[in-house]
Amino acid sequence: MASALQVVSSRSALLILREAFYGTTRFDDFAERVGISQPVAAARLRELVGDGLLEREPYREPGQRTRMAYRLTAKGAELLPVLVALMQWGDRWLAPDGPPVVLKHRGCGETVRAELRCDAGHATAAADCELAVGPGRRQATGQRIGPVPPEE
Amino acid sequence: MASALQVVSSRSALLILREAFYGTTRFDDFAERVGISQPVAAARLRELVGDGLLEREPYREPGQRTRMAYRLTAKGAELLPVLVALMQWGDRWLAPDGPPVVLKHRGCGETVRAELRCDAGHATAAADCELAVGPGRRQATGQRIGPVPPEE
Repeated sequence: MASALQVVSSRSALLILREAFYGTTRFDDFAERVGISQPVAAARLRELVGDGLLEREPYREPGQRTRMAYRLTAKGAELLPVLVALMQWGDRWLAPDGPPVVLKHRGCGETVRAELRCDAGHATAAADCELAVGPGRRQATGQRIGPVPPEE
Repeated sequence: MASALQVVSSRSALLILREAFYGTTRFDDFAERVGISQPVAAARLRELVGDGLLEREPYREPGQRTRMAYRLTAKGAELLPVLVALMQWGDRWLAPDGPPVVLKHRGCGETVRAELRCDAGHATAAADCELAVGPGRRQATGQRIGPVPPEE
């Protein structure tokens, strides 16, 4: 998670990715819709391309010079659960007027949510999670996850 | 989502929340485990308490003065899907040696993941999502979500 945060830790990077999910592809639109200056947008887009989350693709409109469109790569597109989880947390805790935007399943029209589920298919609450050492871990751990009772 | 990012946009804030999920409660442990200086840890913990994600609770060990423990509130604990989604994205794209830590369902031992699912129970891919206007939206939208085909 720490290395994931090195890639997507800045607020403007996540907002650019959100716009890319919404279908934005043009430099000017990213800057305007995220509400950042053009130099900041340029720096952030360059980083996101460098980290492999967006890719550049030339396009040309009649009578104009060739410009670059920015599109999500597979690596970038797989961040959608992070964005949806952030969105629903913000909707629940920070949106007194209700959510500004709702994500719907195109097939059935129901609201889409990010939820925790184990590979056996059980919906999993925070208190039902525990940590185990993975293959990439140098140092063992075995702590609980979730709000910790006072006596611990 | 933009307001959610105002609360949790900094890398150290998210790493502190992760430690809180792992069971860390003491000031010194947060600073050490996140790898930040004590002044930075103090500032970040103060913000997280101010935003209602952590709460302070006095504790006392024999022969020592009263100190403060930091625990997740319900608002903070509901960020777990964001952290799990970040973790699994990092594991997939940035961890060549495999995941350092795996989250298990205490009941059955299976790996826990953050996944997108609609209220009708369908697992939902990015390309199957579409945006709809919510009650808190001032301005209408109706764009697609997901990697956008070149002709758009």
